[in-house]
Amino acid sequence: MIFRQLFEQDSSTYTYLLACEQSGECVLIDPVIDTVERDLAVLQALGLKLTYTLETHMHADHLTGARKLRAYTGSKIVVPAMDKLACADVGVEENQVFRVGQIELHPLFTPGHTGHHHAYLLDNGMQKVLFSGDALLIEACGRTDFQSGDPVKLYQSITEKFFTLPDETLVYPAHDYEGRQITTIGQEKNRNPRVGNNTSQEAFVAIMNGLNLPYPRKIDFAVPGNELCGECPDNVPEQYRGACEIVQLPPELSRPMKAGDQG
Amino acid sequence: MIFRQLFEQDSSTYTYLLACEQSGECVLIDPVIDTVERDLAVLQALGLKLTYTLETHMHADHLTGARKLRAYTGSKIVVPAMDKLACADVGVEENQVFRVGQIELHPLFTPGHTGHHHAYLLDNGMQKVLFSGDALLIEACGRTDFQSGDPVKLYQSITEKFFTLPDETLVYPAHDYEGRQITTIGQEKNRNPRVGNNTSQEAFVAIMNGLNLPYPRKIDFAVPGNELCGECPDNVPEQYRGACEIVQLPPELSRPMKAGDQG
Repeated sequence: MIFRQLFEQDSSTYTYLLACEQSGECVLIDPVIDTVERDLAVLQALGLKLTYTLETHMHADHLTGARKLRAYTGSKIVVPAMDKLACADVGVEENQVFRVGQIELHPLFTPGHTGHHHAYLLDNGMQKVLFSGDALLIEACGRTDFQSGDPVKLYQSITEKFFTLPDETLVYPAHDYEGRQITTIGQEKNRNPRVGNNTSQEAFVAIMNGLNLPYPRKIDFAVPGNELCGECPDNVPEQYRGACEIVQLPPELSRPMKAGDQG
Repeated sequence: MIFRQLFEQDSSTYTYLLACEQSGECVLIDPVIDTVERDLAVLQALGLKLTYTLETHMHADHLTGARKLRAYTGSKIVVPAMDKLACADVGVEENQVFRVGQIELHPLFTPGHTGHHHAYLLDNGMQKVLFSGDALLIEACGRTDFQSGDPVKLYQSITEKFFTLPDETLVYPAHDYEGRQITTIGQEKNRNPRVGNNTSQEAFVAIMNGLNLPYPRKIDFAVPGNELCGECPDNVPEQYRGACEIVQLPPELSRPMKAGDQG
């Protein structure tokens, strides 16, 4: 398996690349529209053609790169099925393995940050690996004060779906704001200040309801744009508009080459 | 592969269990004499028979469980070959793969904390995994003020042997004093306050020489005891003496069963 952890600075988002070396298929989990060029360069450098983009949830802090990457690579857009997005190609749901070649991703329905959030679990042969999205971050968790957020549901998602995994399970979050890259289930059970050390549901809800976080600076265009799989709505501010543009290729380059196209 | 990260509280030491499921062979990296009973219980629970104990270096903060585990399980004691320990069964050195069934551990000669320190690198198919011993800890590193310690050598070990690995490489340290369990090469390059962010060798040496750490409380018996692979010397204080005792089994249990022993 090829694995890369990629970072987008403006929203502090981690995008994960997983590729099956046997089949050549690969997936980008939570790609960001601002870093599509970087993602394409990584795919080029590794000799990969993108098969899928996969979202953990409807992001409020960035536009997904899914639609733009599909335009360039022909990748399929994969989202939680319950999102019912007309623009998506594949829906995933809990208890249905999502396969990328020989890589098996197990969707875990983990609402609370958003109503339809899913995390993805795989087994690399040495330990389990959780792509936790925004449900569990390093010594933190996603906020629960917008977009069908619900601290009770998030508490249940973390304690019932995540903290029942082996302590050695690697946790790759969708964000970190302090340069950290990884944690484990055991480490979060020990150290997470919001939900670790057997914090009660009541205490967690009180913490989450008392955070008083600022209004998300991109939410007004990110959510409607992500409901269109990463189309830029009219209200995208000027400084983010450049990332929305899809380079139009001449017709002969906008479809796969077929036998007979050459010579 | 079976993998467990185990913790010994008194010295805040991580012991790592790696087992090859195909061959049934397994290794404990840096076992501690105080937790031999726990280690045996883990082996029992997993249905494993210990093949090897493997040391990263001559510890000053705890006695190794190697000799005691060999007495109970018949495991072979593996140490850096340059330690030249008469009590050991196998010596490892850089550029010679140490195999545990199908698991390949690559020894990396990484002096600086001690003169003969080795780290062990494997590839789990998804990412490289470094057992960094005391050479690199999470946002820290081993001290360099005793036992042939040398901050210049430690700087070279970390920057030339570790920081040249892929950023995604998992780092499992031999200690953590704050409940953290894992880091990555990328995270330490970004965040390690002693050696990260392109700290110069001069600055690192100044930091290490200015730490003014207390005299290690176990060093006077741990080092001579570890030179005997975990025999307890006469000067072990009373409160640690209990861990030294090896339960004597009756003769028929102190060797492997052979055909003809039964019935």
